[in-house]
Amino acid sequence: MPKTEGQDAPGTEPAAVRVAVLGAGNVGGALVERLLSEPDAIAERSGVHLEVAGVAVADPSRARPGIPAALLTGDAKALAGDPAVDVVVELIGGTEPARGLVELALGAGKPVVTANKELLAAHGASLARAAADAGVDLLYEAAVAGAIPIIRPLRESLAGEHVRRVMGIVNGTTNFILSTMSESGADYGDVLAEAQRLGYAERDPTADVDGHDAAAKAAILASLAFRRDVVSDDVPREGISSIQPVDIEFAARLGYVVKLLAIAERFDDAAGARAGAGGGGAGAGAGDAEISVRVHPAMLPATHPLASVRGAYNAVFVEGDTCGELMLYGRGAGGVPTASAVLGDVIDAAHHLRSGAAARLVPRGKARIRPTDDLRCAWYLNIDVVDRPGVLAAVAGVFGNHGVSIRSMEQVGLGDEARLIFLTHVAREGDVTATIGELRALDVVEHVGGVLRVVGDEEGT
Amino acid sequence: MPKTEGQDAPGTEPAAVRVAVLGAGNVGGALVERLLSEPDAIAERSGVHLEVAGVAVADPSRARPGIPAALLTGDAKALAGDPAVDVVVELIGGTEPARGLVELALGAGKPVVTANKELLAAHGASLARAAADAGVDLLYEAAVAGAIPIIRPLRESLAGEHVRRVMGIVNGTTNFILSTMSESGADYGDVLAEAQRLGYAERDPTADVDGHDAAAKAAILASLAFRRDVVSDDVPREGISSIQPVDIEFAARLGYVVKLLAIAERFDDAAGARAGAGGGGAGAGAGDAEISVRVHPAMLPATHPLASVRGAYNAVFVEGDTCGELMLYGRGAGGVPTASAVLGDVIDAAHHLRSGAAARLVPRGKARIRPTDDLRCAWYLNIDVVDRPGVLAAVAGVFGNHGVSIRSMEQVGLGDEARLIFLTHVAREGDVTATIGELRALDVVEHVGGVLRVVGDEEGT
Repeated sequence: MPKTEGQDAPGTEPAAVRVAVLGAGNVGGALVERLLSEPDAIAERSGVHLEVAGVAVADPSRARPGIPAALLTGDAKALAGDPAVDVVVELIGGTEPARGLVELALGAGKPVVTANKELLAAHGASLARAAADAGVDLLYEAAVAGAIPIIRPLRESLAGEHVRRVMGIVNGTTNFILSTMSESGADYGDVLAEAQRLGYAERDPTADVDGHDAAAKAAILASLAFRRDVVSDDVPREGISSIQPVDIEFAARLGYVVKLLAIAERFDDAAGARAGAGGGGAGAGAGDAEISVRVHPAMLPATHPLASVRGAYNAVFVEGDTCGELMLYGRGAGGVPTASAVLGDVIDAAHHLRSGAAARLVPRGKARIRPTDDLRCAWYLNIDVVDRPGVLAAVAGVFGNHGVSIRSMEQVGLGDEARLIFLTHVAREGDVTATIGELRALDVVEHVGGVLRVVGDEEGT
Repeated sequence: MPKTEGQDAPGTEPAAVRVAVLGAGNVGGALVERLLSEPDAIAERSGVHLEVAGVAVADPSRARPGIPAALLTGDAKALAGDPAVDVVVELIGGTEPARGLVELALGAGKPVVTANKELLAAHGASLARAAADAGVDLLYEAAVAGAIPIIRPLRESLAGEHVRRVMGIVNGTTNFILSTMSESGADYGDVLAEAQRLGYAERDPTADVDGHDAAAKAAILASLAFRRDVVSDDVPREGISSIQPVDIEFAARLGYVVKLLAIAERFDDAAGARAGAGGGGAGAGAGDAEISVRVHPAMLPATHPLASVRGAYNAVFVEGDTCGELMLYGRGAGGVPTASAVLGDVIDAAHHLRSGAAARLVPRGKARIRPTDDLRCAWYLNIDVVDRPGVLAAVAGVFGNHGVSIRSMEQVGLGDEARLIFLTHVAREGDVTATIGELRALDVVEHVGGVLRVVGDEEGT
């Protein structure tokens, strides 16, 4: 008979599960501190006794506050392969040497918990296969959106759901910068400097502000939501460094906020726009559908649930045929919250070791990526032109040439120049790109400034 | 070696899992329709083939659109105990005959999925024990907040977390009524009538507006969050029928919104107020802590994430020592969204049948409930008094007599009367109740109108 927690009556004492922690940075340090400081409370709540078998660090001779020296080792390989270790937690980050260590642990039949988004976004499919071959867990709740439970809901709660789109605010640094720009009207550069001073942005902020971090998370979310293999390289990125306060201000006047979004979307074009909550559906597997996974700043209606996600918070918004709209919100970063998600996975792995089961791995196949030019949404464009008669007609004519229909236009005087603020109807991205190219070549156009996609609004995008 | 989904290579065809559905109302009908209309898409996404073994209804002679007559049966007992059935889904609702049928299925070694909050809030502990004895699943993601994944995150993702408080907007009817009153300024009675016309409220709205529905869900959430047995009878309730537009208006002016909240809270008083995100913690198990589980309307700061949950949406807000603040948001009701959560559980149960595991059951013990009088929060009071000198001093004196400290007071003229709007500092509920009693007895007090607790604001409650 399978063993369940309910059968561990008070008084029985199951054997401790020995956990190896690779890496003792923010997350690893917080995890080890919790495991060492409150083992009894964790056991009381979770039903498993966890014990730290060792902590692999680059320099074991350096003292780590709260970690006994005897637990430290410089030999991550030996620790990951140690027969006395039951569960391996990889918190080193980056693809190497993390990949080799994870493969080593899985190959030795040990479940692995990781928070390593780069590794999963690059080699998730092969690692999942290695875990399946070994019949053990590969768990990574902490790899996307820190403490927020999003991996488990996508993998389990929504296992039968036809997910249409996942949109996430999954990078706290850029959300802090955009929120602050929006509230203070300050320039990107000034706010970035403040974020660096406060510790919300790295000294080299590229991974965050250029969207690399969000792109890795988008790949992981898309792989789970659509049961297809998506890697970072499949994800086109635009960062936030060119966002101007004036665009945020115009967005606000038009009823929108500017957010950096990770978007994973599937298209069932053959069936046309799918009915909202009618159930049933066309029954097509993801194999028949194209998907798009991308990261870019976007204008979201101020009434959209994601619009109120401020500061360093994260949120993931899921739209499915029958579940409707779901949003999962919380702390997306920080050692202590992220370690909380890692601990949840470690407890899962420990329970699975006892019951002899393993988490369901998502079956994968190659994703069919829709070309960016074929994506459709409404657009915001901010265009500086010389202020003389006939200019608006010339500019509007360029939109018309490419079949891009204008929803609204506002003109603002700027001395000898004028600024034209356009919102388009839903248009093909390739057509908008061609429009912008032709506008830039136009004599009367001084500058094409802010260009932002509009998502989540009533035009149904 | 344990079997994982990853090992079902394309081409292999695992046996179908046969599902019995008891009840074919909104949720049952939507579930059966999905199972019958897109079995291949569900299998492609989830890795399990589900087959409807039968559907138990009160009157099998009545035709049900979309359900072949051959599947219908009037004998729920025979279906639940049928050896050919692998998983039993109970969607009848209420405690009887649902309880007997669930016990029958568990006793026959079959996993059970249910959306029945009344049953779980009354008999959850004994049913969990029956499931543990049989080594099978008892899953109920759909019992609280419809399509929103909240049960699984509380049971698994937060298994190691020291949860301090769970606050939920878990009843769509009352949230629709309060949202509409707030937006339109209309009276409770008019909005209730509109909600009934729109199908958001039952003809007899008692279960919703008096908080019975929310109290059952609060009991379920508390049981999971604190690993203790909490039943509906442990949950004091206040409904929304006495909420006046004037109170909603004053709340808005003071920066608050009025919501009906289900609150489950634990107190570790010995350790004083727990540090926010410091990890560690006192390590006390729930057995040492008092808890409080209650349902009442409350004033929430307009900036609180729960404040923006409008209309028929639901959300659950979780505060933990290390995970920080989490919010899970989505469709809390409706046949199709709720069936989506049921389907996720059915898929889980089917996977567990294959791997021989079962979901972890939450160990339970008797909860120590803190007396309501000892709860502490800030309060809003709306008091009509005769308008003459000395009245404010008399009224304020009553607050002082009971040690209730006033944070702000606003006086509004009303002809011969005056209305006094008080916000208190954090106070003991017993002291506030005594204050109200003494105020009512005061000559100069015409009427104590709206009385609302203030939660989630900067005073730390």
